[in-house]
Amino acid sequence: MSDELARQLAAIVGERHVQAGGDIAERYRIDISRKYSSTPAFAVRPGSTQEVVAIMKLAHAAGVPVTAIGGQSGTCASAVPANGGIALSLERMNQVLEIDRLSMTMTVEAGCILQIAQEMAEAQGALLPLDLGARGSAMIGGVIGTNAGGNRVLRWGMMRDMVLGLEAVLADGTVLSSLTKMLKDNAGYHWKHLLIGSEGTLGIVTKAVIRLRPLPTSRQTALIACPSFEDAIGVLRGLEVTLSGRLSSFELMWGDFYEAMTEAQLEQRPRPMPLGHAFYVVVEAMGGDEESDSAQFERSLMTLVEDGKVVDAVIAQSDAQREAIWAVREDMTPGLAPRRPFSSYDVSMGVGDMPAFVAAARANVLAAFPEAAMLFYGHAGDGNLHAILSVGETSKDIQRSFDTAIYDAVRQVGGSIAAEHGIGTTRSAYLSWARSEAEISLMRTIKAAIDPTNILNPGKVLAPLA
Amino acid sequence: MSDELARQLAAIVGERHVQAGGDIAERYRIDISRKYSSTPAFAVRPGSTQEVVAIMKLAHAAGVPVTAIGGQSGTCASAVPANGGIALSLERMNQVLEIDRLSMTMTVEAGCILQIAQEMAEAQGALLPLDLGARGSAMIGGVIGTNAGGNRVLRWGMMRDMVLGLEAVLADGTVLSSLTKMLKDNAGYHWKHLLIGSEGTLGIVTKAVIRLRPLPTSRQTALIACPSFEDAIGVLRGLEVTLSGRLSSFELMWGDFYEAMTEAQLEQRPRPMPLGHAFYVVVEAMGGDEESDSAQFERSLMTLVEDGKVVDAVIAQSDAQREAIWAVREDMTPGLAPRRPFSSYDVSMGVGDMPAFVAAARANVLAAFPEAAMLFYGHAGDGNLHAILSVGETSKDIQRSFDTAIYDAVRQVGGSIAAEHGIGTTRSAYLSWARSEAEISLMRTIKAAIDPTNILNPGKVLAPLA
Repeated sequence: MSDELARQLAAIVGERHVQAGGDIAERYRIDISRKYSSTPAFAVRPGSTQEVVAIMKLAHAAGVPVTAIGGQSGTCASAVPANGGIALSLERMNQVLEIDRLSMTMTVEAGCILQIAQEMAEAQGALLPLDLGARGSAMIGGVIGTNAGGNRVLRWGMMRDMVLGLEAVLADGTVLSSLTKMLKDNAGYHWKHLLIGSEGTLGIVTKAVIRLRPLPTSRQTALIACPSFEDAIGVLRGLEVTLSGRLSSFELMWGDFYEAMTEAQLEQRPRPMPLGHAFYVVVEAMGGDEESDSAQFERSLMTLVEDGKVVDAVIAQSDAQREAIWAVREDMTPGLAPRRPFSSYDVSMGVGDMPAFVAAARANVLAAFPEAAMLFYGHAGDGNLHAILSVGETSKDIQRSFDTAIYDAVRQVGGSIAAEHGIGTTRSAYLSWARSEAEISLMRTIKAAIDPTNILNPGKVLAPLA
Repeated sequence: MSDELARQLAAIVGERHVQAGGDIAERYRIDISRKYSSTPAFAVRPGSTQEVVAIMKLAHAAGVPVTAIGGQSGTCASAVPANGGIALSLERMNQVLEIDRLSMTMTVEAGCILQIAQEMAEAQGALLPLDLGARGSAMIGGVIGTNAGGNRVLRWGMMRDMVLGLEAVLADGTVLSSLTKMLKDNAGYHWKHLLIGSEGTLGIVTKAVIRLRPLPTSRQTALIACPSFEDAIGVLRGLEVTLSGRLSSFELMWGDFYEAMTEAQLEQRPRPMPLGHAFYVVVEAMGGDEESDSAQFERSLMTLVEDGKVVDAVIAQSDAQREAIWAVREDMTPGLAPRRPFSSYDVSMGVGDMPAFVAAARANVLAAFPEAAMLFYGHAGDGNLHAILSVGETSKDIQRSFDTAIYDAVRQVGGSIAAEHGIGTTRSAYLSWARSEAEISLMRTIKAAIDPTNILNPGKVLAPLA
């Protein structure tokens, strides 16, 4: 059968776009974490939606699993194909098809790299607001499939909020096409919202219309220190008023995270601010009126200093200073090196519930591992925290203990086990920590209705039934 | 059976909360347009989610249709109950259960009136951004069921964008509860997005967690005139940069709309600006720094005047002047009186496609009725236009001709037949003007999977199969 399938796939996409068995390149089998890999039967690179349709009809008839492969920058194995299945890479479908400057939209194929789409928008005076560390490898289809977040969610939302139109191919090869440019549309059920964030389990996204924004022309960045969590949130709420819609980032770091990262970076750059504060925050705003925006930014921070909510503040006066401030938060490789192997988490909750979560998580972890090292930081304006845990070694048991410690704390505050990285297979066993039985049962009903033979990325999001 | 059902319903909610047959109050049978009415068998007012569960179990077993009733301010018969069915009013479930100022969320029951929720938020220094004319009667459950829009979508989005958590009861009485406060959550399929905007056909929303925003403290309003549509959109894009995230309304009016409305309002108030311009726009921004915001607003408009994109501008200097400017757009009753009976439309498209839509719509209408009067206006920042058509009389044929003229033009620009008012029964025959056969088929699959006996608001959104 496999030879026959190989022949049929080659007939659809051309022989040089089919790889089989041991000849399959690593990028179709392994994700960026290198923790997850598999042995798919084929890797296939279609060049058009019609070719995706033909592949899906073939796979549907043969009952062969299909997994859409993006940039493999996810970290929970969502896009690691099934053993014996088809790895479907849309890398050849990588064109920006249109930028409509009046409607402020971009129509783009799913295989386009995020950074290329960003740059194409910028060249037209427009902003594609989604931004994340993996911008150079993540594909549009991938950031839709995982409903990616990143550093600017506070102002412009997640990928879900930017997808206006969508074209997708269902398990049986049906094309759903709604490449519309509407910001408002209440004509029937919003199937696009089912596909966004479904990690390729309900359909293969082939094209999308993305909402752009006029490119901001001014940017203010500061590092500030706050004496308490409540003060930090007070600063957030204050800046949301005074800077109004301009506030675009509010990245919170616990004091020990700041110390660990800046300590390891000392060879590259001096610490932008002394140690010793309870919380540090990278604050950024964007606008269109440099002089007035800068003055307002400074005045807003000054008021918060007078109120005692901010105890130290450094405002970037140049791009180099801006980069140095962001590096504290983003250049994490040196700081993490001595902590390897570590486990990382991406959880969310109500903004006000973050201290209760961190307290519970610390207590749970220390109860299991009194010597554990823990670092907390995250997109606090979104209630999204990341945690890094390490004990100097790793094993399945250690991993499971860490997972339980963190997800129990999440459950205690009614939070989510996956804020932006998704479920994949690594978190599917914990879905019931964040979702009730009735919710999971509804998800299974939806999956069974849309993909009755379960060939679309099987086993991801929803764990196989025992 | 009906007597038995009456007894069982009374046992659940108490006798005084069940009305039957001819005793059913008008508000459970007729919508605000007074064009649509029905003869339900019962109107029932549950006092808790558990009572809704018991009612749904009963209805499910008996195969009786159930329609959730809100404030009846929709205009496409979405909440007009089925003949012989149950009108389910959640008006007794009307409490704001919690306002969390740190997380900036409100937990509220579905029967709460929008305006009351807005006022409760404001008393806590918070903004519930959704705002629309029917705020005094629309209920939270209704604005979720229709994914309501309104005047501030440009900045804060539609209801969908404000719903963080949801509790709902499915057709068989299953409770789906996810009253979470997360802004980011990628743990499995987002069933809430299926229910939001589904007009009560997939579940009964009983509670919601709504995202609040810090209350703005400054507000600037202007009426401006633009010589062309392209100039008006240039103004929109320019203000999106210079006012940045502060721009909250951009309400476009064609010159003849402005003339008709202000002419009829002359007894109440003088015209804020002379006639004769091609386009008029109400522009509003909100912020947190009165002095600096006002200066920036004025400076932004001044620049646009110098560029020639704005040919006249009046900035409100007082609340009375602000109200007079908004009245041009909102006090439509006098201007519409001489045009009764009329048909009104609520369509959307890419912002750049609005002129092509208006040209096609005008041509289509005039081809059918050379004497027809037409007015166009709308939330142009969202690509959402309203149209008012009249020929001095009405009939089913006239209505059908108007519908076809408008929806053909919508289809031509790839737009939507329902931007914010939904489908109900009045537009269900036209769903295929905006959605492909494959999309509608998927909607039917979803409906059949979640409500297999079709008791939840049957016949709405999806027309019965012939």
